[in-house]
Amino acid sequence: MSTDEPGPPSRGAGFVRFRLDLAYDGTDFSGWAIQPERRTVAGELTAALRALVGGPERVLALTVAGRTDAGVHARGQVAHLDLVHGIEAPTVRSLNGLLPPDIRVRNIAPAAAGFDARFAALARVYAYRVTDRVPDPLRRRDTLLWPRRLDDTLLQAASARLLGLHDFAAFCRAREGATTIRTLQELSWQRDSDGVLVATIQADAFCHSMVRSLVGALLAVGEGRWPVERPASLLGAVRRSDAVAVVPAHGLTLVEVRYPPADELAARTRITRAIRVREPGPDT
Amino acid sequence: MSTDEPGPPSRGAGFVRFRLDLAYDGTDFSGWAIQPERRTVAGELTAALRALVGGPERVLALTVAGRTDAGVHARGQVAHLDLVHGIEAPTVRSLNGLLPPDIRVRNIAPAAAGFDARFAALARVYAYRVTDRVPDPLRRRDTLLWPRRLDDTLLQAASARLLGLHDFAAFCRAREGATTIRTLQELSWQRDSDGVLVATIQADAFCHSMVRSLVGALLAVGEGRWPVERPASLLGAVRRSDAVAVVPAHGLTLVEVRYPPADELAARTRITRAIRVREPGPDT
Repeated sequence: MSTDEPGPPSRGAGFVRFRLDLAYDGTDFSGWAIQPERRTVAGELTAALRALVGGPERVLALTVAGRTDAGVHARGQVAHLDLVHGIEAPTVRSLNGLLPPDIRVRNIAPAAAGFDARFAALARVYAYRVTDRVPDPLRRRDTLLWPRRLDDTLLQAASARLLGLHDFAAFCRAREGATTIRTLQELSWQRDSDGVLVATIQADAFCHSMVRSLVGALLAVGEGRWPVERPASLLGAVRRSDAVAVVPAHGLTLVEVRYPPADELAARTRITRAIRVREPGPDT
Repeated sequence: MSTDEPGPPSRGAGFVRFRLDLAYDGTDFSGWAIQPERRTVAGELTAALRALVGGPERVLALTVAGRTDAGVHARGQVAHLDLVHGIEAPTVRSLNGLLPPDIRVRNIAPAAAGFDARFAALARVYAYRVTDRVPDPLRRRDTLLWPRRLDDTLLQAASARLLGLHDFAAFCRAREGATTIRTLQELSWQRDSDGVLVATIQADAFCHSMVRSLVGALLAVGEGRWPVERPASLLGAVRRSDAVAVVPAHGLTLVEVRYPPADELAARTRITRAIRVREPGPDT
């Protein structure tokens, strides 16, 4: 079975496509993508699918919306699974019965015509959790501890300046042939009832390490080390900025992938394919 | 150093009392109380205190409000620490620097006159998290997975009948000489934004396994196996009911301990001591 290959855009002659909704605790995974000798989310999922459905001659593709990096979590990950026509799809219960407890399948259902988990997506939404107070030990797996006080107002002000269509190359790990132009649709901060700062970050898509680089630049503002204008001043740069620290993976969770209505899925897939070239590797 | 000994009720001739606010992930602890060969919260805390302050001739007592059982978590645990007069108290930073990441000290401050973490408490508040949906892998350490659907309305109705002053012996593990009469001040259920059912349970104090037994009886109602009146019908029984299942520890968190205003602390301590006999062991 190939994973993350673009694959046919809809129900084809010989296969049926299913949509999978997934959640995982990324702590003990080397990210989504299969790697030799590493424990990965796609690797565990593929092993469970093979046990239930069969080998690569029956499972044609497993493609994910957000190829999360090592240590990154997901609550609202979406993938599609192409099975040879006539093969029965596994149930949520059968998959979860075989999967380790740090991955849960939330739903599996036949995909709407034209659905492609990666290319039909309108937007990805991530959350980044950081605390500048004494941390809750029960949330230490998904919350970054920041050793200095963070100013909510400075974080908001610096974030607002980053919104919109920009070249985010300063915040991206270089990848040959991949565009770094993205539309940042939301970047806002809220303190939850425990005082944890939660950033909500939404874009059409993210280049590699973009969320963690944006948060790193913003925390420099929040602690008063950088002026509020500095993150936005890096927009449009042609390459990655050495000044931007990439914050650790464990504070980051993919919370949602947004898709258009069913009748616009196929058109959206065509548009996305035309804009973005193929980008291997993780995109968080 | 003795732990959980009642100790003098206020600042005495030879010692100064401090209030500690604590949080811990109970997963990898055999509960609060020190036991030989076991990893316990009091054991880890005592080791850190000894390293910073000195041995039992300097640290006279460490007494906790809620002696949590193995696997039970805490966000709002409170303890008091008696140090020989003239010994400087450790700081939050120095303690957290020595403690493992699954225990965090939130605050340490001189205690008000008459403060006693255990006997001055007016109430303990616990939360129990249970989900009847596909669980979030990031919350699997503090959320029970229930394999059948739970009816929120039935849970609420059965819970309301348990409120007030009762003999909870049917819901308590027997302990010689210990009263099982308690005032249940709150028992309510709410679904959070992820669909997780969170019970909030408040009483003046709890006898051993009381919270987990109450939740066990209520879940039997919630899934439709018991009539709504049955948990309350067990109130007043003279001994533990075999019909009541004790739910697992990992869904349970001590969220808050409530104390009276400073000028009522000493009186409250006297009253509590008079009502309750000494009860060794955990009380969750």
